[in-house]
Amino acid sequence: MGTTQKIVTFGEVLLRLSPAENRKLSQAKSLDFFFGGTEMNVGASLAVLGEDVAHITAVSDDIVGDAALASMRQYGLDVSAVQKVAHPIGQYLLEVGSGMRSSQIAYNRLNGSFANIQPETINWDQTFEDAAFFHWTGITPAISEAAYQALKAALISANAKGLQITADPAYRSNLWQYGRNGQEVLKELVGLSTIFIGGVNEINEILGTSFELNQEGFIAASKKLMTECPNIKQVFDKIRTGLSASWQKIYGRAWVDQTYIETNELEITQVVDRIGTGDAYAAGLIYGLLHYDAEKALNFANAACALKHTILGDVNLVSVAEITEVMQGNTGGRIKR
Amino acid sequence: MGTTQKIVTFGEVLLRLSPAENRKLSQAKSLDFFFGGTEMNVGASLAVLGEDVAHITAVSDDIVGDAALASMRQYGLDVSAVQKVAHPIGQYLLEVGSGMRSSQIAYNRLNGSFANIQPETINWDQTFEDAAFFHWTGITPAISEAAYQALKAALISANAKGLQITADPAYRSNLWQYGRNGQEVLKELVGLSTIFIGGVNEINEILGTSFELNQEGFIAASKKLMTECPNIKQVFDKIRTGLSASWQKIYGRAWVDQTYIETNELEITQVVDRIGTGDAYAAGLIYGLLHYDAEKALNFANAACALKHTILGDVNLVSVAEITEVMQGNTGGRIKR
Amino acid sequence: MGTTQKIVTFGEVLLRLSPAENRKLSQAKSLDFFFGGTEMNVGASLAVLGEDVAHITAVSDDIVGDAALASMRQYGLDVSAVQKVAHPIGQYLLEVGSGMRSSQIAYNRLNGSFANIQPETINWDQTFEDAAFFHWTGITPAISEAAYQALKAALISANAKGLQITADPAYRSNLWQYGRNGQEVLKELVGLSTIFIGGVNEINEILGTSFELNQEGFIAASKKLMTECPNIKQVFDKIRTGLSASWQKIYGRAWVDQTYIETNELEITQVVDRIGTGDAYAAGLIYGLLHYDAEKALNFANAACALKHTILGDVNLVSVAEITEVMQGNTGGRIKR
Amino acid sequence: MGTTQKIVTFGEVLLRLSPAENRKLSQAKSLDFFFGGTEMNVGASLAVLGEDVAHITAVSDDIVGDAALASMRQYGLDVSAVQKVAHPIGQYLLEVGSGMRSSQIAYNRLNGSFANIQPETINWDQTFEDAAFFHWTGITPAISEAAYQALKAALISANAKGLQITADPAYRSNLWQYGRNGQEVLKELVGLSTIFIGGVNEINEILGTSFELNQEGFIAASKKLMTECPNIKQVFDKIRTGLSASWQKIYGRAWVDQTYIETNELEITQVVDRIGTGDAYAAGLIYGLLHYDAEKALNFANAACALKHTILGDVNLVSVAEITEVMQGNTGGRIKR
Amino acid sequence: MGTTQKIVTFGEVLLRLSPAENRKLSQAKSLDFFFGGTEMNVGASLAVLGEDVAHITAVSDDIVGDAALASMRQYGLDVSAVQKVAHPIGQYLLEVGSGMRSSQIAYNRLNGSFANIQPETINWDQTFEDAAFFHWTGITPAISEAAYQALKAALISANAKGLQITADPAYRSNLWQYGRNGQEVLKELVGLSTIFIGGVNEINEILGTSFELNQEGFIAASKKLMTECPNIKQVFDKIRTGLSASWQKIYGRAWVDQTYIETNELEITQVVDRIGTGDAYAAGLIYGLLHYDAEKALNFANAACALKHTILGDVNLVSVAEITEVMQGNTGGRIKR
Amino acid sequence: MGTTQKIVTFGEVLLRLSPAENRKLSQAKSLDFFFGGTEMNVGASLAVLGEDVAHITAVSDDIVGDAALASMRQYGLDVSAVQKVAHPIGQYLLEVGSGMRSSQIAYNRLNGSFANIQPETINWDQTFEDAAFFHWTGITPAISEAAYQALKAALISANAKGLQITADPAYRSNLWQYGRNGQEVLKELVGLSTIFIGGVNEINEILGTSFELNQEGFIAASKKLMTECPNIKQVFDKIRTGLSASWQKIYGRAWVDQTYIETNELEITQVVDRIGTGDAYAAGLIYGLLHYDAEKALNFANAACALKHTILGDVNLVSVAEITEVMQGNTGGRIKR
Repeated sequence: MGTTQKIVTFGEVLLRLSPAENRKLSQAKSLDFFFGGTEMNVGASLAVLGEDVAHITAVSDDIVGDAALASMRQYGLDVSAVQKVAHPIGQYLLEVGSGMRSSQIAYNRLNGSFANIQPETINWDQTFEDAAFFHWTGITPAISEAAYQALKAALISANAKGLQITADPAYRSNLWQYGRNGQEVLKELVGLSTIFIGGVNEINEILGTSFELNQEGFIAASKKLMTECPNIKQVFDKIRTGLSASWQKIYGRAWVDQTYIETNELEITQVVDRIGTGDAYAAGLIYGLLHYDAEKALNFANAACALKHTILGDVNLVSVAEITEVMQGNTGGRIKR
Repeated sequence: MGTTQKIVTFGEVLLRLSPAENRKLSQAKSLDFFFGGTEMNVGASLAVLGEDVAHITAVSDDIVGDAALASMRQYGLDVSAVQKVAHPIGQYLLEVGSGMRSSQIAYNRLNGSFANIQPETINWDQTFEDAAFFHWTGITPAISEAAYQALKAALISANAKGLQITADPAYRSNLWQYGRNGQEVLKELVGLSTIFIGGVNEINEILGTSFELNQEGFIAASKKLMTECPNIKQVFDKIRTGLSASWQKIYGRAWVDQTYIETNELEITQVVDRIGTGDAYAAGLIYGLLHYDAEKALNFANAACALKHTILGDVNLVSVAEITEVMQGNTGGRIKR
Repeated sequence: MGTTQKIVTFGEVLLRLSPAENRKLSQAKSLDFFFGGTEMNVGASLAVLGEDVAHITAVSDDIVGDAALASMRQYGLDVSAVQKVAHPIGQYLLEVGSGMRSSQIAYNRLNGSFANIQPETINWDQTFEDAAFFHWTGITPAISEAAYQALKAALISANAKGLQITADPAYRSNLWQYGRNGQEVLKELVGLSTIFIGGVNEINEILGTSFELNQEGFIAASKKLMTECPNIKQVFDKIRTGLSASWQKIYGRAWVDQTYIETNELEITQVVDRIGTGDAYAAGLIYGLLHYDAEKALNFANAACALKHTILGDVNLVSVAEITEVMQGNTGGRIKR
Repeated sequence: MGTTQKIVTFGEVLLRLSPAENRKLSQAKSLDFFFGGTEMNVGASLAVLGEDVAHITAVSDDIVGDAALASMRQYGLDVSAVQKVAHPIGQYLLEVGSGMRSSQIAYNRLNGSFANIQPETINWDQTFEDAAFFHWTGITPAISEAAYQALKAALISANAKGLQITADPAYRSNLWQYGRNGQEVLKELVGLSTIFIGGVNEINEILGTSFELNQEGFIAASKKLMTECPNIKQVFDKIRTGLSASWQKIYGRAWVDQTYIETNELEITQVVDRIGTGDAYAAGLIYGLLHYDAEKALNFANAACALKHTILGDVNLVSVAEITEVMQGNTGGRIKR
Repeated sequence: MGTTQKIVTFGEVLLRLSPAENRKLSQAKSLDFFFGGTEMNVGASLAVLGEDVAHITAVSDDIVGDAALASMRQYGLDVSAVQKVAHPIGQYLLEVGSGMRSSQIAYNRLNGSFANIQPETINWDQTFEDAAFFHWTGITPAISEAAYQALKAALISANAKGLQITADPAYRSNLWQYGRNGQEVLKELVGLSTIFIGGVNEINEILGTSFELNQEGFIAASKKLMTECPNIKQVFDKIRTGLSASWQKIYGRAWVDQTYIETNELEITQVVDRIGTGDAYAAGLIYGLLHYDAEKALNFANAACALKHTILGDVNLVSVAEITEVMQGNTGGRIKR
Repeated sequence: MGTTQKIVTFGEVLLRLSPAENRKLSQAKSLDFFFGGTEMNVGASLAVLGEDVAHITAVSDDIVGDAALASMRQYGLDVSAVQKVAHPIGQYLLEVGSGMRSSQIAYNRLNGSFANIQPETINWDQTFEDAAFFHWTGITPAISEAAYQALKAALISANAKGLQITADPAYRSNLWQYGRNGQEVLKELVGLSTIFIGGVNEINEILGTSFELNQEGFIAASKKLMTECPNIKQVFDKIRTGLSASWQKIYGRAWVDQTYIETNELEITQVVDRIGTGDAYAAGLIYGLLHYDAEKALNFANAACALKHTILGDVNLVSVAEITEVMQGNTGGRIKR
């Protein structure tokens, strides 16, 4: 790979619509909107941190697709390889909860532009030419056969190129409607990856195991995963405690080099936006792995995730300096003049 | 039918999204939204005028569908027979033009909740129990086989009940993707209707004729239509001249009782919203036919259509008094205190 | 009453105006508005929960009254018996506090449309035809002689029909300007009711007693109330602790069947809107009494009240499923996809 | 009067509420608001032009009254003599029309703070100490007996001080509900004034005459008015032609020193706000009479009125320079950098 | 000084721009704006409390300067002595933080209208004619030589008139670019003042000492300050603990008459706006010193400061009644009807 | 130049702030904002049309500069060579006029980041490596000596590379405060350019001539310009007639190859935004010259300019298809579905 640090992300871009002020749709004055999607969020957060990132996806060949491209460019993403197809871009309507009221999401994505991506027209070898990292999640292979095929081709190419491959293989049961078995597919694709972002629940889902959620369970599950998927060299997890939709606590833990590491817990007492906080963790982790050792990377990921709770929208708009300050314990919120 | 005047409308309800202030999506601050759809617009406009109207449709079984129902209720529509299905509600993104810049629409409707309506569960005979009018448009049979089957069943039942049936059979070439031939279907369904809302273009499309757009052509086309579809007893048309997206002129003409009638032309120099102006014409016409003779009904329809250009959203929110004043030539906009 | 469960509510509808973002009026960018009123809030919350509810009131015969009707219809209320009168609809201006800063309200209601309701034109017997519940509050008889007369007639009719009658008789000293003695009137009207929603303070106000606020005082006061007003069979109270305008705790308690029952305390750390939380409690209680036993009804009421603090506006827009989840202790705010 | 030019205005301050974007209330996202009122608008417009103006009124003794005072101060009005009373401030809800759709207003003012002003506590002699002009309109004596008494006392004092007194005595038939005869009162009060702002319609209303609207009728009516009310020395009128709510034409005419004068007609093709345009005319006239001769004053008034159509809100926020430019025919709208 | 209580404040007025909803500028829908500045905030907060306050500053001679004047008038400030100069008004862009994310400010003030104030044209003797208090801060002499000269002239005049002079001499290192030494200047100007608003950090900065932050250090520092600057008779400090940008605690302490006094700590769990909270403390203190003894004044200042955290914008819009209630421990946020 | 078509633009990026709804700043609810500047507008409009464009400028090294970069990226501009300097980004406050009321602008740009650009650090030879066009305007050399030096260096390099150089040398008298003579500088820089965008006024300003505005004057002035500045091969002008701020007419004319060409006049009856319309003309012209002959290019430029009047913000967001349609006379504003 040489000295390059280009990162490639691949996944659906969705139009997120939500009423402001915790309103229900029936009482909304208008709808805020953001373009996002778990993999694009990771890519855009990394671009905001100053990294060189290309996002691969398919958008609609209409005014909505044009706006999605403009949004991605604004974050600094390289969109030169994005496809335009004749299907509407996927979207979701989000009613933002508060306190004990959960947020609710209604999706409209199953026959959208990304589900109709054309795998054969993506030149993965060229895409990965100068790349160091490839990031994927379990959403992509759950959307459609085409999306699965495109991802599998990407992983094969990325392996051939020797990239680090981060897998965030969350299983979403309300997807997977096109026919394939989610568990089998995810296991296959994790097998083609090198870094696992997830914990006991995700490993149990993929391997059909039943490890416990505590530290011992996490270590045992990580070992089992590395046995089943020997390409996987590191497991990074994050533990979230939700006191309410507005008040959350998180910390990170990892199994790296046969060693368990863990961060302090960070507390967010006024959540501005919970969407994309997991993606901020993944982006922080990739940034950290590019620039720091694994322990500092884990702390950077956890601080990035915590800060994302204070940012509206899907993408983490904070700087390396802001994350570093939180890592160092400066969370008192002094005004920066 | 006795003395009752209940009206039934049937068709897709869409979530309309649009940036305010003539903005492009890429520069929008947020999205205004309205629930509408050509047939619902007709029904809601009639409900606002004080009529008793039921709208039949299928919405999504989620928070968006709930909001669609609330919106229909707000206009005064009876929604007790609306279906809830497990598909997302259709929608469109509208960039509102201005002056010489056209409005642009991106649709996302082809696999939505209305396309997946369940025809067999609609009890049309009960729906039409106290009804005087049934209104449909050419959009509905263009959406899906299920929508076509439901409409056809409605028309058969409405005929059996002796209702007046208004057909607004505009042909939209970018729909009709489910397999049937639009021209054949529309001709079949117009044959089951009694009042044709449309003009030379619509007749030419359905009959495959090539009448000219002038008065003679309109009369000849109307006569031909009545020959081919002998149920049709009246033809009501409206002629629009667009000086720009912001400046429009309209007048109505009709062929009724072997007589040609025509209204004055009304001019709208500052269009607030062009969407739903044709539906306001149809609603005004149905209101007029319920309360006035054909000529006054045509004038009422034309005035209603003109006034709709000054109302934001899909539905015509003006009163009978406001329409009547415009019919009488009072268009100077004095403040009503 | 058979198997029907129709509910009737009666009371003033007010236009609520308030700046967003905790702004003072002098710095407001614009005013948010909602139509509400304690009894309408109860009715609308029940309609949102799926109940069949009619609200009886008088609105202004102008564009504001039209909008009030549209708003009530949107919630699903039956407004077919609402009067239109030639007086402006009442209103209030609300500056929303935060933290240690209290919200402030300026009313304009004393000579509005509801104060000028025409009691003689309400057909209560017909209104109560299929009804199971009638709900009133102490605001109504405090507005005007006409409002008092209409309410008294309602209670007499409701008693004759055998309805359950919920009384929420809070005494507001800055009303009661038309001449009658509030204490006497409230006692008379509670005497015509079957379920008392209130606690020690309300009982002391009505009976002129001085019971203490603790559990013993509540039980003693309830017993005394049932002695004085033997129609009353149940007393439901809620205890609120305000840490600040933004942070509140509530729990419910009741005296039912000679038994004291009490709920857990629920905590709201980020209040979105406190207006209408008491009405949400009353609506939850009525829903609960229709579907559950008294203890579960009390828990449902308390959870509904807590959730209302997370909803903007006067009406509780949450679903039975959301309330049930909070009753079961799931208050961590997980996203519902 | 010496060299001072202080101006005193007297009249109700109303809270104006209106949906933006020509929306109907039932579809409004929020309500824009302004404090205004015909006489305050005149005073505030003069203050914006740099004059020293005191406005006398009564506002509510609550948060709304506080905001009204802040708004008046912002325009530069001296509010040191404003009363605070325990009645809500009057208000109106405005749905802004467009094109052929008229604006509609619903008032709520008949028992507000200004109607309950305390005439005996106003020290008019002190108020007029340094004043050159006093301005009143026909709205004030139509509100309540108290308002009438206060105005009459003001006129007697102003006459004693030798002020110029501008009367804008429009007759509003939906006011005058407190018992007095509008025609008689207005004639009495015009008799105590020196400058009449109005034309044939207003003179006919007051004198019970039936002059025609053309130039000859205007001159004859003016002469008759000066005969009946010999204090009146000048009559200033403006002629408005409404092509639609959005497109208006105006010109001024006057009968001064036995001479007829007339301005060019100015055309406003995109009305931003019609409310307060008559008040802008009156303010422009008073400014003109303070600084120019009658003909230039009339032209200044007409240009001020025309420019007000481009300003949102009740008050004319344009500068002397901007009015002067329009007077000079520069209406092409070049950007001022 | 007699019985008058006029207060004079002097300092830069800035245009503050900030995205709503904690947004970053790159994702802002629009910018909220307020005119403020530390000394104007003190003056405006005092005017809102009912005091007679004149603010002296220089604004731009353009439409922005006009709006600044209107804003100051709205708060009730006397702006008759404000200069208009041909330089743009200073401004800052504020991204409002949340939780552990700090707010960030980008200034644009170093060559603005206040930096270009004309010291020689201010008539301080006339300005202080009826004044009891003059307030300044360490920002002013840090802006430019002209601002320093104007302030020094003011202090000399105020001393001659025997005013109380409150100094809030915070040292901002990123200002002071025009050449003078901040420490020396501040010491000189504090020497011309009578009341010091600040604590150990501020004293250490000015005197070059290194007292500790605890109570003993505060007392020792205050004594040292009074030795070095014998005009200073009282020192008022406030201690802030930031748990996060959204959660703050504050209490006041003072050294007055050789006595240490201290308030209770107040906690703000949901900060609406932190800008201007120190200015609210100073305003509360001046109000308190005018009306109460030093201990009550300190408590009033601390309560005013706490309440300001709940008010958007730079100026404290709360009333004496609201502050008094918080002083008395009523922080539960009951609705005021 | 080969087949490449890269375009380079160079100039200041300003933060534009303006109240919505034609409001004055003193009554604005919030401020809309856009990043723009005449040369960046040209570049961004070309990027939106699909061209490969790099913009060279200097922005502030703070959160405002970051947002400026994000905005430029969103339009598709290559910003890799933008400088970050420690001065605030320039800005202007725009009050948008309407009808006969002119827009007003207050600038704050004279000591901003672009004025402090570092000419020596720009590698023009590298920047122009693959470029075909370089565009500059008369604003740049008017800002500061540094800006002038940077531009002159660019022109020398561009000439050496044989680029087409478009000059839009409008003279703004309120700039040019750093010492150089505007007329001399502009003549020098036009002498280094190949295409002149401007007409009689601009030529007269630069050459000190006094040609008349009619066709003959334009031809004579163009000939004179080509004599004085022999590098100039083409002159493209546009004639604007302002009926009001809201109603404008434009047509283009040119002197190319010793031939006079002229377009039809296009009329905009409802101007959405006039800012950037001249830049849209320049961008349309450059696009046209890259793809069409001079006459078609002129028509494309005129249509692009007309359409820009319907787009909010500084940049022309229309597509080649939309411009082409207007060129072909389709200005009726039909909805594009």
